[in-house]
Amino acid sequence: MKVALIQQEYKGSKKETIKYTKKMIQEASKNGAKLVVLQELHQNEYFCQSEDVKFFDYALSFKEDIKYFSKIAKKYKVVLITSLFEKRTAGLYHNTSVVFEKDGTIAGKYRKMHIPDDPQFYEKFYFTQGDEDGFKPIDTSVGKLGVMICWDQWYPEGARIMTLKGAEILIYPTAIGWFDEDSQDEKDRQLDSWITIQRSHAIANGVAVISCNRVGFESDSSGVTDGIRFWGNSFVSDAGGKIIAQAKTSEKILYAKIDSNLTKETRDIWPFLRDRRIECYKDLNQRFCDQSRSIIK
Amino acid sequence: MKVALIQQEYKGSKKETIKYTKKMIQEASKNGAKLVVLQELHQNEYFCQSEDVKFFDYALSFKEDIKYFSKIAKKYKVVLITSLFEKRTAGLYHNTSVVFEKDGTIAGKYRKMHIPDDPQFYEKFYFTQGDEDGFKPIDTSVGKLGVMICWDQWYPEGARIMTLKGAEILIYPTAIGWFDEDSQDEKDRQLDSWITIQRSHAIANGVAVISCNRVGFESDSSGVTDGIRFWGNSFVSDAGGKIIAQAKTSEKILYAKIDSNLTKETRDIWPFLRDRRIECYKDLNQRFCDQSRSIIK
Repeated sequence: MKVALIQQEYKGSKKETIKYTKKMIQEASKNGAKLVVLQELHQNEYFCQSEDVKFFDYALSFKEDIKYFSKIAKKYKVVLITSLFEKRTAGLYHNTSVVFEKDGTIAGKYRKMHIPDDPQFYEKFYFTQGDEDGFKPIDTSVGKLGVMICWDQWYPEGARIMTLKGAEILIYPTAIGWFDEDSQDEKDRQLDSWITIQRSHAIANGVAVISCNRVGFESDSSGVTDGIRFWGNSFVSDAGGKIIAQAKTSEKILYAKIDSNLTKETRDIWPFLRDRRIECYKDLNQRFCDQSRSIIK
Repeated sequence: MKVALIQQEYKGSKKETIKYTKKMIQEASKNGAKLVVLQELHQNEYFCQSEDVKFFDYALSFKEDIKYFSKIAKKYKVVLITSLFEKRTAGLYHNTSVVFEKDGTIAGKYRKMHIPDDPQFYEKFYFTQGDEDGFKPIDTSVGKLGVMICWDQWYPEGARIMTLKGAEILIYPTAIGWFDEDSQDEKDRQLDSWITIQRSHAIANGVAVISCNRVGFESDSSGVTDGIRFWGNSFVSDAGGKIIAQAKTSEKILYAKIDSNLTKETRDIWPFLRDRRIECYKDLNQRFCDQSRSIIK
């Protein structure tokens, strides 16, 4: 099954940006992609660099955005992973991936479960975290897709639950980058950590992983900080944790062929799911086991 | 804090093997190591290559073994991580790490929680899995140590629970190797997966990881198979997931300095523990969510 990841820059306006995205989807489809993955919040600049209520208006078009990408998916006959800003009701917004079937119908949607909040990534201001039944794969004509978003990629818990619910591929639209003022060593560490943690989900669960990241420099519209240089490097790992395609730090349609037989092959050799100690994992539902700490110290 | 990992070959007998181990511990101590980590089942050959009741007799010396390594820890003033074959009662054996304080007292013990069973790694025949309160860090003079063993290293669950219970370093004595008949590609994939999954525990949890592996070829005493070539490559990852020391495929005392400040620094930058969705992780206690599958399919 051929997949395409569209790693792109923000084009200065939503109109120009989605025009470019549409062209890339057309090209990916022409080249045989059955599944197209877009990056996080691909219609606009990464507006979470500052906290400003004006950006909530970006979510007002959520229903129109769905109609638009539904048409695109249908026109180019691809299963399409989008990443949109959802207005659920006044004062309640989500960072939401809507997944379209190749006939344009909505296959399902996923509301980002783990919300970050760090300098220049002020997402807790904009997004309410997904509801409790959040980690649920989306059934499509190309398989059961465990779609999560960006910060989710750091959590083995999400990857595992998606797997236990039958996900065959894990997919992360994402927006992560460097601050120019950081040292090269620190930048290398961050990029390498980001790849490693996602490959580890492939290894632990025996599923392929797709990660589609933003690329290019985006300034902070508030003028307070020096902006973010999104590091691209979108990649696809097979079910054994091997990177089979990886982009660099420029725009790219990244193609890969996912072999669905590898999940069975990999898991049969190293059957981690067989030996999980499910009766001993209750503490995973704890924030921190303070009591065990205080008893000892 | 300086640590030493003793990666060694089996010397043909228990007597010769522990003689060599003792010499290496002495050397590590002389070189300033405060914590010494031994590989899995370091006293004997890796006997799990076949199923034979005669090997249960290796566990009869468990109490003597404890006395022996207690003396060694005291003599060389090191916190010592051993990996022993424990007879708990007749017909009930464990793969157990006993951890000694630098004064020779027992700081704690850990019974391997996830037990593999694959061709030439017939551990389910020999070892009962650890009891339900298994994932508990051991308090020592060099910190709270999240000691687990070999197959445990593939499970993000164990690493996370140890972290939630305050572990400051994760430590894996291990015994993993190649079959000579596998292709180089497959061997590379296995080694890389093994390193990646363990580094991911450092990244996800912001703790250092120590992995001490066997090295050298060991034949199958039953003569049925072609033996295992233990791949060494013991390593230490810092709390940011960066490898700070790594052995090759020969005997080695591997030294590293662990900076305990890195846990705070790393977690403050990327505070994953802050954003865990603990109310949404209940399915981690499931074997497989068959129902969610059957509803859709």
